[in-house]
Amino acid sequence: MATKYSELELALNTLVTEFHGAAGDEPTLSPAQFQTMISTQLPSMAKTVDNEEGLNQVLQQMGVESGQRVSFENFWTLIQQLATQQFSLMHKEKSVKCSCLLQ
Amino acid sequence: MATKYSELELALNTLVTEFHGAAGDEPTLSPAQFQTMISTQLPSMAKTVDNEEGLNQVLQQMGVESGQRVSFENFWTLIQQLATQQFSLMHKEKSVKCSCLLQ
Repeated sequence: MATKYSELELALNTLVTEFHGAAGDEPTLSPAQFQTMISTQLPSMAKTVDNEEGLNQVLQQMGVESGQRVSFENFWTLIQQLATQQFSLMHKEKSVKCSCLLQ
Repeated sequence: MATKYSELELALNTLVTEFHGAAGDEPTLSPAQFQTMISTQLPSMAKTVDNEEGLNQVLQQMGVESGQRVSFENFWTLIQQLATQQFSLMHKEKSVKCSCLLQ
């Protein structure tokens, strides 16, 4: 019988495999690969990173130095920011349905 | 029409709502609530935290001071460790199927 994973394990796996899939054979993403991943996986941020200035600003917030590639740790900095934002929103507005917070 | 979320957005949402659900009305978890969440959501770690010594060690690694409750930031430290471990395993052994890494 196949092992049944918990929701949390599956979520963790998704985050890791999304980055891994976007990076292909490399351990890191080029800024262009990062941009593509954002446009498909984080559409709410796609507009922010669709020009060089916005992209560079987001990369800088993730700790990516100018001209460098995006590591998993950099990506995780972004994920952490989004999760922390969402958690604090959720805690402030308990009546809001969780799924709405992603918009 | 309902908004369709990406895999990454859904995964992020799951991580936040799992903690939120385990914490109930509080913004933080008691060590006992944390222990219950681990046993259902991270069964691979359940044995480690089923005794006080193991639990305290994991809490300490998450930055929880003795006698303190578990914040979302503490929980996120654990999630980050697990994700980083999984990513480095995945990158080392490309032939291993991603789903096997959770075991």
